[in-house]
Amino acid sequence: MVLKEFLKPLEMEYIEIPKLDNGQLLVKIEAAGVCGSDVHMWKGEDPRTPLPIILGHEGVGRIVEINGTKETVYGETLKEGDLIIWNRGVTCGQCYACKILREPSLCKDRRTYGINISSKDAPYLNGCYSEYLVLDNRTDIFKVETEIDPAILVSASCSGATIAHAFDMMDGILGQTVVVQGPGPLGVYSVAFAKYLGANEIIVIGGSQDRLELCKELGATTILNRHDTNQEERREIVFNKTKGLGADLVIEAVGSQGVVEEGIKLLRSGGEYYSTGFAQPAGLENIDFFKEIVSKNIKVQGVWVSDTKHTQMAIDIVNKNKEGFGKLISHKFSLDQANEAIKVMNNKEALKAVLIP
Amino acid sequence: MVLKEFLKPLEMEYIEIPKLDNGQLLVKIEAAGVCGSDVHMWKGEDPRTPLPIILGHEGVGRIVEINGTKETVYGETLKEGDLIIWNRGVTCGQCYACKILREPSLCKDRRTYGINISSKDAPYLNGCYSEYLVLDNRTDIFKVETEIDPAILVSASCSGATIAHAFDMMDGILGQTVVVQGPGPLGVYSVAFAKYLGANEIIVIGGSQDRLELCKELGATTILNRHDTNQEERREIVFNKTKGLGADLVIEAVGSQGVVEEGIKLLRSGGEYYSTGFAQPAGLENIDFFKEIVSKNIKVQGVWVSDTKHTQMAIDIVNKNKEGFGKLISHKFSLDQANEAIKVMNNKEALKAVLIP
Amino acid sequence: MVLKEFLKPLEMEYIEIPKLDNGQLLVKIEAAGVCGSDVHMWKGEDPRTPLPIILGHEGVGRIVEINGTKETVYGETLKEGDLIIWNRGVTCGQCYACKILREPSLCKDRRTYGINISSKDAPYLNGCYSEYLVLDNRTDIFKVETEIDPAILVSASCSGATIAHAFDMMDGILGQTVVVQGPGPLGVYSVAFAKYLGANEIIVIGGSQDRLELCKELGATTILNRHDTNQEERREIVFNKTKGLGADLVIEAVGSQGVVEEGIKLLRSGGEYYSTGFAQPAGLENIDFFKEIVSKNIKVQGVWVSDTKHTQMAIDIVNKNKEGFGKLISHKFSLDQANEAIKVMNNKEALKAVLIP
Amino acid sequence: MVLKEFLKPLEMEYIEIPKLDNGQLLVKIEAAGVCGSDVHMWKGEDPRTPLPIILGHEGVGRIVEINGTKETVYGETLKEGDLIIWNRGVTCGQCYACKILREPSLCKDRRTYGINISSKDAPYLNGCYSEYLVLDNRTDIFKVETEIDPAILVSASCSGATIAHAFDMMDGILGQTVVVQGPGPLGVYSVAFAKYLGANEIIVIGGSQDRLELCKELGATTILNRHDTNQEERREIVFNKTKGLGADLVIEAVGSQGVVEEGIKLLRSGGEYYSTGFAQPAGLENIDFFKEIVSKNIKVQGVWVSDTKHTQMAIDIVNKNKEGFGKLISHKFSLDQANEAIKVMNNKEALKAVLIP
Repeated sequence: MVLKEFLKPLEMEYIEIPKLDNGQLLVKIEAAGVCGSDVHMWKGEDPRTPLPIILGHEGVGRIVEINGTKETVYGETLKEGDLIIWNRGVTCGQCYACKILREPSLCKDRRTYGINISSKDAPYLNGCYSEYLVLDNRTDIFKVETEIDPAILVSASCSGATIAHAFDMMDGILGQTVVVQGPGPLGVYSVAFAKYLGANEIIVIGGSQDRLELCKELGATTILNRHDTNQEERREIVFNKTKGLGADLVIEAVGSQGVVEEGIKLLRSGGEYYSTGFAQPAGLENIDFFKEIVSKNIKVQGVWVSDTKHTQMAIDIVNKNKEGFGKLISHKFSLDQANEAIKVMNNKEALKAVLIP
Repeated sequence: MVLKEFLKPLEMEYIEIPKLDNGQLLVKIEAAGVCGSDVHMWKGEDPRTPLPIILGHEGVGRIVEINGTKETVYGETLKEGDLIIWNRGVTCGQCYACKILREPSLCKDRRTYGINISSKDAPYLNGCYSEYLVLDNRTDIFKVETEIDPAILVSASCSGATIAHAFDMMDGILGQTVVVQGPGPLGVYSVAFAKYLGANEIIVIGGSQDRLELCKELGATTILNRHDTNQEERREIVFNKTKGLGADLVIEAVGSQGVVEEGIKLLRSGGEYYSTGFAQPAGLENIDFFKEIVSKNIKVQGVWVSDTKHTQMAIDIVNKNKEGFGKLISHKFSLDQANEAIKVMNNKEALKAVLIP
Repeated sequence: MVLKEFLKPLEMEYIEIPKLDNGQLLVKIEAAGVCGSDVHMWKGEDPRTPLPIILGHEGVGRIVEINGTKETVYGETLKEGDLIIWNRGVTCGQCYACKILREPSLCKDRRTYGINISSKDAPYLNGCYSEYLVLDNRTDIFKVETEIDPAILVSASCSGATIAHAFDMMDGILGQTVVVQGPGPLGVYSVAFAKYLGANEIIVIGGSQDRLELCKELGATTILNRHDTNQEERREIVFNKTKGLGADLVIEAVGSQGVVEEGIKLLRSGGEYYSTGFAQPAGLENIDFFKEIVSKNIKVQGVWVSDTKHTQMAIDIVNKNKEGFGKLISHKFSLDQANEAIKVMNNKEALKAVLIP
Repeated sequence: MVLKEFLKPLEMEYIEIPKLDNGQLLVKIEAAGVCGSDVHMWKGEDPRTPLPIILGHEGVGRIVEINGTKETVYGETLKEGDLIIWNRGVTCGQCYACKILREPSLCKDRRTYGINISSKDAPYLNGCYSEYLVLDNRTDIFKVETEIDPAILVSASCSGATIAHAFDMMDGILGQTVVVQGPGPLGVYSVAFAKYLGANEIIVIGGSQDRLELCKELGATTILNRHDTNQEERREIVFNKTKGLGADLVIEAVGSQGVVEEGIKLLRSGGEYYSTGFAQPAGLENIDFFKEIVSKNIKVQGVWVSDTKHTQMAIDIVNKNKEGFGKLISHKFSLDQANEAIKVMNNKEALKAVLIP
């Protein structure tokens, strides 16, 4: 399913399976996640998007063919028939970010399946909204070793990994109070990470009661509906639940204007704010630096995409609660229904849609 | 010299030396720094200020009397005649910040000589604009062990310690590029810390050529006068000096509106911004979170006051370049000239004034 | 129950309740843990032990009287009738360890109830094997806020806090393999911390099948009985369970000779070894530095006692599985049976004995 | 110069310059360091050594030819004639160490020029004791941008980078006391890193007065000759210089039996020991875990080789004191004198020998 023009329906197209280069893998897609970013890309709001493109950066698939040999991150030799998941971004391994910072997520040449590789460039099958995908030989691959529906695992490679990146930058959170702004997929993963890393209080703020209830099932201890409470009331609740200190951590998983201004005020002195939701431009946040940042010794950390370590962390979290994450999947579609999938995501009817090619 | 009413001259007052309680020390002040904060307090802009108050939170002094015994932080028994410097803040040692966070600078009961202790409360001699000061038995004290003019060392206990707090939160900076916004005392300490911890490029932005030149003497490799360059030019210079990557670290040492907006744009992906200059309200900063924070994976860290470790770090830095820090002291006054000292600081005639009681 | 002479029975003695000094609290002991260290102290093997002494450093109690006011670590005002637990060590708050290192567990003047304070020194009631205990005003206190049997919570203040100290020094352990050497109270807490902080594989090595089974109930995924396996077999099992890499973390919770030599060999390259069990001299460990430490880039970390943050962490962990920790308590005795309690601990009949005065 | 048989002289051999594969670079060696490891390899003591081999893992050279394009770590396009230095180890970029741990120095497939690549394997020119070297396209390369004698810079790529690895694992060392065991090249770099990162006291222990004197020129504040002092005296000196606390950090740069036992005893409570010198087997160290590790809360860290970040750090340190590091070079030889160079290193006549092909 190829996006040829922004805001126009994706078109089903037949692309011949290319001859594999050395180290490349041909993968039959078993599940392709429809990410909120896909909607933004479809609208032309993401400046990284080349046209034409096969969308889809979240995938789980089964190996059909390998040219040469390829190992998993753990050194296991891969073979045809293996069910796999991979880091959606392929990094150069030699630039300043990769080698001096050792933060490959900041690699300037990071190539991401379904995001910044056009379908007019070889090997053409570069996105997951497709029956087949060709993986570059430098892709970092994990075998799926547990019994799990691929549709449930697929989000680990994007929203799960991004939230893993945030938690990877935190110190221990045992016993802490974590506020999550936004109950979408990023928020759901935030709740799960907070729970399985030992937080005591997990408070989620959102506008959709259904999504908030799902967060509760996954471990939130308090859910606050924006339609039932105002900002001042929410702040009071957070401070009441923390002996008047404020939250240790706030995770922003929304990405719309004004969210930072509310979120920062919920922190205790010395608290930390992780901003994960701004995947595209959303205007300015107005911050009183004296009051909200300096006099409270606050840390604000931007969180951009993820690397292979984070994919592993997200897989670990999903495996701790497969049933719970199963409830995150609100819609399944066949590949030819991809436009329908984008529609329900755009309308916010779906929490998470998955294509099953 | 007592501040009885905001914006009115300090008044010389005779206060009888009190009988010391157990563990208290009577100190003869040898040098009292006049801090920018003192000017704000004098104007009534700092909400912490009780009246009447003896201003002065930066002091070096000689012990006149000890009731009982008292040790330095290193366990040395103090005696009359010892020249000492101390952490200006006295913390409770038992609250959440002191004992769970182990961040005493965030102690809610932090009492600071010359800042939030009135001269109407025993033991009355609670600020450094005075011949004598009484130190509480829980004050953390260091012996001055090197040959140094007390006027040179005195700022280590405030601006030096605050900047030490910022550097204490950084990872290693060997070989890095550090931009310092503001060439006042906080900026001068930032330059010195950056130099003695191994930075390669130290770029200072400011509006006073004299101050910028002093920064150069202390280790800045590039100085950029705001009156000779515009924001875009400064950004270009920073990126040119960093192979197009941007600065690793930016330290904000100004505290006026708009400074964050410029500073954040100077960072490389994954860079860190330390805000140290906002000691009182200064309006809002407008931040494009997508562009400047999230997509670049930036860390912004507020830096509030300091603790005893940081006082030690600042003493270490001053001792590495006594001569250089000597040039920071632009004015010395006798105690009865305290109003004159506040005036030259308020007019920005002085870089750093010190009272020699 | 007073220890007057090593290896002789503790003697019941009546000590008058002293008049409290300012800030002191009188506490009615509800549960006093009998720690392995108590046995060593009773034998005279711990060089810190003054005579005579009321043993017992693990306590939960109810406030009977407060002279003045006293707050919890969270700033709550304490009152008579409150059920509390506290950091067993009282630190000076002013020395190099407390203020420069900010590691109060290394305070040189750390005074520990039941360990290094004699019952001949005021206020005499200085240990938990007693009906009443007097807490110094600098003790860090937590309210017991959940419904929990004090006997279950009591070990949080010693073995739980020590293991919390180890985990506090680790980076995130999500998905990792943790090997625990020794299934006693330290080992049981290691299992629980590993589980609730997200480890995937938790392998416990020990000699008592009962204790190993308890570890399994608390979260161990594999238990290895030293009587059924040899060292080489255990190493093979650990490597098999880690795709041939070795364990990420090994926690030593035994303290007897040779344990380090086995444990270090179980680590992967870059792994970390935490030694928590050596509370008294136990001879030499012979380490091949080239092979086991340097060429594998291993970290070995000694873990000595704990501070207030760690007490809080241990309370959090117990609260996550009260029922499980309940099974750790193998014996309860009345106060006058203290010698019986020491006997069953010395014979290793008991996993954990608690006195209920 | 090819090593064909252990303990036999290297033989001059003519190897034809191969046709370069895509991305490979042909480099004319301008300086090749003779490392202590080369002597061990020559003796057959390093299990990694394949035969035949061109020794030499430390090199600075000038690009003669590039097949295709190649960038530096900073993204600069390399061209013929550029003077370069490189990370001696080439890592796979895809294994557990490279991608999950983000510690490429632990990569299981790390290939190191002059250490584990035989001259019988293409492209044959795989070591620096040679006129020409072929660099693999995945080699991480830095341009030499300053005016510096290549002989002075060359050790940055091995002993400098290894010590950088140690300092990269430390927290800030401003004002601290660092003890260095061993005044060879590793020790000299330890002194320089300690100085330029802000240590106050740098104490070097060694057996060669010449080398100790060089350490003093490079920043050591105290040098202790093993022939003039015994272990107890050295311990006393270290404690006297640290107010009785002990050293904050000890760096082992010797690698012979017994050195750890002395070094660990020099630490303060909570101090850290970095072992960098054991490049080949050297027997057992006997450690009293209770006394030296656990009751003092000591960290022991093995340090194995280095990665690209560390090469950069070492270059930065050399550039801070080119003249000083120039004194490290005691001998220069032509390529055909390589056997002579190994001889003077083996006899410990040379501190550091360099071949100038």
